Amino acid sequence: MNPIVAEFVGTFILLLLGNGVNANVSLNKTYGNSSGWIVISMGWGLAVFVAVFIAGSSSGAHINPAVTLGLALVGRFSWSAVPAYLLAQLLGAFAGAWVTYLQYRPHFSDTADQDTKLGLFCTGPAIKSTLNNFISEAIGTFTLVFAVFYLSSGEGLGSLNALPVALLVVGIGLSLGGTTGYAINPARDLGPRIFHALAPIRAKRDSNWPYAWIPIVGPLVGATLAAGVYMLVM
Amino acid sequence: MNPIVAEFVGTFILLLLGNGVNANVSLNKTYGNSSGWIVISMGWGLAVFVAVFIAGSSSGAHINPAVTLGLALVGRFSWSAVPAYLLAQLLGAFAGAWVTYLQYRPHFSDTADQDTKLGLFCTGPAIKSTLNNFISEAIGTFTLVFAVFYLSSGEGLGSLNALPVALLVVGIGLSLGGTTGYAINPARDLGPRIFHALAPIRAKRDSNWPYAWIPIVGPLVGATLAAGVYMLVM
Amino acid sequence: MNPIVAEFVGTFILLLLGNGVNANVSLNKTYGNSSGWIVISMGWGLAVFVAVFIAGSSSGAHINPAVTLGLALVGRFSWSAVPAYLLAQLLGAFAGAWVTYLQYRPHFSDTADQDTKLGLFCTGPAIKSTLNNFISEAIGTFTLVFAVFYLSSGEGLGSLNALPVALLVVGIGLSLGGTTGYAINPARDLGPRIFHALAPIRAKRDSNWPYAWIPIVGPLVGATLAAGVYMLVM
Amino acid sequence: MNPIVAEFVGTFILLLLGNGVNANVSLNKTYGNSSGWIVISMGWGLAVFVAVFIAGSSSGAHINPAVTLGLALVGRFSWSAVPAYLLAQLLGAFAGAWVTYLQYRPHFSDTADQDTKLGLFCTGPAIKSTLNNFISEAIGTFTLVFAVFYLSSGEGLGSLNALPVALLVVGIGLSLGGTTGYAINPARDLGPRIFHALAPIRAKRDSNWPYAWIPIVGPLVGATLAAGVYMLVM
Repeated sequence: MNPIVAEFVGTFILLLLGNGVNANVSLNKTYGNSSGWIVISMGWGLAVFVAVFIAGSSSGAHINPAVTLGLALVGRFSWSAVPAYLLAQLLGAFAGAWVTYLQYRPHFSDTADQDTKLGLFCTGPAIKSTLNNFISEAIGTFTLVFAVFYLSSGEGLGSLNALPVALLVVGIGLSLGGTTGYAINPARDLGPRIFHALAPIRAKRDSNWPYAWIPIVGPLVGATLAAGVYMLVM
Repeated sequence: MNPIVAEFVGTFILLLLGNGVNANVSLNKTYGNSSGWIVISMGWGLAVFVAVFIAGSSSGAHINPAVTLGLALVGRFSWSAVPAYLLAQLLGAFAGAWVTYLQYRPHFSDTADQDTKLGLFCTGPAIKSTLNNFISEAIGTFTLVFAVFYLSSGEGLGSLNALPVALLVVGIGLSLGGTTGYAINPARDLGPRIFHALAPIRAKRDSNWPYAWIPIVGPLVGATLAAGVYMLVM
Repeated sequence: MNPIVAEFVGTFILLLLGNGVNANVSLNKTYGNSSGWIVISMGWGLAVFVAVFIAGSSSGAHINPAVTLGLALVGRFSWSAVPAYLLAQLLGAFAGAWVTYLQYRPHFSDTADQDTKLGLFCTGPAIKSTLNNFISEAIGTFTLVFAVFYLSSGEGLGSLNALPVALLVVGIGLSLGGTTGYAINPARDLGPRIFHALAPIRAKRDSNWPYAWIPIVGPLVGATLAAGVYMLVM
Repeated sequence: MNPIVAEFVGTFILLLLGNGVNANVSLNKTYGNSSGWIVISMGWGLAVFVAVFIAGSSSGAHINPAVTLGLALVGRFSWSAVPAYLLAQLLGAFAGAWVTYLQYRPHFSDTADQDTKLGLFCTGPAIKSTLNNFISEAIGTFTLVFAVFYLSSGEGLGSLNALPVALLVVGIGLSLGGTTGYAINPARDLGPRIFHALAPIRAKRDSNWPYAWIPIVGPLVGATLAAGVYMLVM
């Protein structure tokens, strides 16, 4: 695949399966209703797994502007390719949110709670606090990007090479996701938020735009910090 | 093993462990009663894992007519072998449902709810809607078959090569299974439905034949779509 | 390690971690109290994982008389080594139950229910029925041993080679364990049952000896059946 | 990385993700509140996974004084490097607890229960009993260190080589963690306990110093025992 197409496809899969597990756990009358944090964390981790084994050999499967930024900062990715990657990631995330909506449409109609219908698409804080929410997203993304710098592929492992980064994301979700829902990825949050704003979802609330900058800037600051610490210790 | 035998054995194992986990979670007085969606999703994923490491080196372990169709459409499987594969898959699924029944027989006798006794064998919608249920099965199978096209084996990994496809199925279950119970496989649904129709299960309901075409046609459409998109992006 | 010592050590680890997870889930005031079937199934699967990477390169890590029998029947293990293996497995299982008791001693004192204090050591049926319980153990062990025949190690994987058999046991637990608690291993059941009979556990019930033959003979019949089917299809 | 820096970084990650999952499960209003023992056990196991793939190639990723002691006792690690490793581990654990506190700060403010705010940092017994708690920590660490002696890396596996030890820690948590919360690592317990003593946490209780020696001495005794048994059976 063309690398830009691969970033689109990978981020599409990430959000289809990621927003999908949120929908399954939170919408009314689904088979996975209220199945808890282990399902959320494993669902997002396996979303990463599938996205990475599909897109990895074509584009490196960043599927996350914070990862793209981090790799560019430490010299492992060309700055000239950054804008196209970011755009593909944002569009892929939007498309993934869209297909999640198609998949769960009757359950949207059956769910009255407006926060639920927003919260499955994009993140929000468990306790609102601009400073602390910002710090949470920065720490979560620092952990992700710093660890990504140390990931090494095995030779001849095929699709299994996607497992370490998937387990990393499961771990971050279980451990650091409890505060702001671990966006740790600007495209993952903004793409579905735009979809929520545009989509004809019945009885929806506003898309919480005042919060939207935190899961964008927090991750970018976290990735920058990770690049700095990495260059310091190596 | 002969490839046709391998497809039979693989699909038998898939349904024995797959229908088995449904029985464990849903029948009365089992040790796994009400243990939730994580158990269902992991149970089906590990059913795939065991089926694939048993049958993989003999037949490629399709164990799913939608996968067989998808591989034939993109030119990776011979059309002439398709009918025998489909028949072996259907018979294997029927046999797996049968042995699940043997395994859990006293629990069937102890369970009054007739929907439970059907629902552990074959799928049904959480919210009934012909169009949306069809779309759900098509999207789920699209994701499965599209991802299968990108799976690559590692060299010298032995049975571990079965892990990526198993994790893929866990992920689809967690994320997309909440609407129609993710048949995403015509044999997986039809074989056990025929068994339910024929078996001497005490106080059983009808086998919901009006719904039966959706988990057959939906997956075949999803697989065709996956083949189309795959050929488009590659 | 000497292979006989390795079988002892492997089965010791299997029961320490296996009886341990049962104790954690079922005894009063533990941190894992009532944490459900996913914990039980993963606990036993990881018990197998640890036992196999410790003992595998020395003895093949059968850690189960039914596996030893199955391998001997298909000609992959010498009959002359069978008796010593079985004895080592039984003694290892007894020792593992003992150390589990040491680990959880205050929680035994704090648990009044006598069935709980037996049930964490050895298996018993969810619904009592000699024929069906026997069939359940035979089907579960058939699945285990038949699948074991198809396991293949990867080259140069190190301890990761223990993962497929561990996942197999997780899968069997999730799917087929709901009826009799999946002994699927005569040593795993008899060793801890003898320990229960001999140990000075406060306010204990009898060790349910009338049931004890089922998790011995059922697994041996299942393993024999697996060997027969394997030789038929290969 | 320099090996001492790697031990600091590895133990920092271990505690950030380990204390993090405790915070997520136990503090008020988190998204993972009350998500149970499977989340705790997998969270700590994945904390080990991430720590080991980051630090493994630089320092061997002991991230645990009991592991360092065990390896030195059997002649696989130089005694002269032990003091620096232990200090780095203790400081890393302290730092990891600190960043966990930053991550979850508003949730600390929202949680009244003082035992919860201590218990997420350092371990304590489910049933208080000096002898039995000591035995529990010794048995848990014996199992960890004895198994670590048998871990073998695969060639060319890259980050996947961190998976076996992570699964080992998940298994020990599920099976043996129910009594004292499985410190099984003196630095993991002491570092966060010192942080709790020093940090300006609102409405905190004392740091339970009378218990603090058990998760230090118990693990060191367990590791010594493991080294002894290992040398006996090999």
